[in-house]
Amino acid sequence: MSLDAIFFDVDDTLFSTSEFAARARRAACEAMVAVGLRLDVEEVEAELREVVAEFSSNYENHFDQLLRRIPARTFKGVNRAILVAAGVKAYHDTKLTDLRPFPDAVHLLRDLAELDLIRGVITSGRTIKQAEKLLRLELYPYLTPTAIYISAQIGINKPNTKLWRRACSDLNLKPARCMYVGDRLQRDIDPANALGMVTVHLKRGGKHQGEEGDSAADHTIEHFDELRAILVRDYELTLPPAAPRAP
Amino acid sequence: MSLDAIFFDVDDTLFSTSEFAARARRAACEAMVAVGLRLDVEEVEAELREVVAEFSSNYENHFDQLLRRIPARTFKGVNRAILVAAGVKAYHDTKLTDLRPFPDAVHLLRDLAELDLIRGVITSGRTIKQAEKLLRLELYPYLTPTAIYISAQIGINKPNTKLWRRACSDLNLKPARCMYVGDRLQRDIDPANALGMVTVHLKRGGKHQGEEGDSAADHTIEHFDELRAILVRDYELTLPPAAPRAP
Repeated sequence: MSLDAIFFDVDDTLFSTSEFAARARRAACEAMVAVGLRLDVEEVEAELREVVAEFSSNYENHFDQLLRRIPARTFKGVNRAILVAAGVKAYHDTKLTDLRPFPDAVHLLRDLAELDLIRGVITSGRTIKQAEKLLRLELYPYLTPTAIYISAQIGINKPNTKLWRRACSDLNLKPARCMYVGDRLQRDIDPANALGMVTVHLKRGGKHQGEEGDSAADHTIEHFDELRAILVRDYELTLPPAAPRAP
Repeated sequence: MSLDAIFFDVDDTLFSTSEFAARARRAACEAMVAVGLRLDVEEVEAELREVVAEFSSNYENHFDQLLRRIPARTFKGVNRAILVAAGVKAYHDTKLTDLRPFPDAVHLLRDLAELDLIRGVITSGRTIKQAEKLLRLELYPYLTPTAIYISAQIGINKPNTKLWRRACSDLNLKPARCMYVGDRLQRDIDPANALGMVTVHLKRGGKHQGEEGDSAADHTIEHFDELRAILVRDYELTLPPAAPRAP
């Protein structure tokens, strides 16, 4: 059996979103304290975690919400705009220092880009934010430019199977000859299975690690070197051996 | 005569906004071409300059408008989100490398911060964007935290004199004992003059250089070392001599 395309989820699949977000939030809280917020960084962090859990993912508003939730006396005499800007700036700056792909994902994508095979992404999230991640992770050059599917740009969100079907039909692909790699059983594996795609469940930590699904993935991996071996063994792809892992 | 406060405009006063914006736009256009836009960088830049001239200052939308204006065939096969994200990312990244204050402004503010004198800003623009500039320029530590006035945060915009009056009344200051430093005659100098503040017109290039006003500034300078000398000579401030200028 061979493949015409491999699609990847982005968050907690091509990079550790959970780890990045924790670092970025930490940096934001430290920055707010540095410009005059009179609370321990840990207290600010705990409150911000609650805000993130309760509201959707626009972090600029998250800092506004944070300030509404904490006692006003903790930032008396400090302009709210400076506090919010300090958080936003630190969060953005963390993207430059800490937004890094899994090295084994880069190696695999780079090698896949040498083959006659579509390399795409199917991801849930805000359009420009998700596109920016692909650029900052420096993975965009290895992807097929026409095979980037972002839920907000398409108007269909995970776990609706229409999102995967749309990618296949646009690119004239048979789902059975497409692989989908993601970290979440219900939102990634179940819908791709429902369409008859070959599914790969990446179990590598992240905040959704414990979730259950209704169907089983065709393959379960913890590292992209395993996927590389599977692609060679079961799907007739000609790929070089994995790079030696860092000790 | 002595002063209780000095307020500064931000854009094209504490740093060269015009120069920064030109560099950031150039970087954005180069980035869009790098991800697949098939136009010369100069053509993209010319179109973006028109967009900026025609629309207000939210640069994320600017890139969307840019794509609407140019022939779709110039980016066929490239996801619009990638093009916009490339522009946004390059623009943001330029802030880290190119957003620098005038060195003489830093020196003066640092020395003013040693005195018993309010150092504030009165600036027009979006709240978080303007606050972020003060942090990125690393001028915030020299400012009086309660003396930061951003038009969008206050709900009053330049050239309405109420903006300057609000700053004075909040801080319990007599306008006649306050100085305002800005680069635009109609939007900075005229309203501050109308309130009876001491006005300083900074003529240092920038896109509004040629504008005329209805009143004359009390002082006209091209460099903050001149203001330093004026503050010592006319306003009884004790300031060290200016740092030697770079050759």
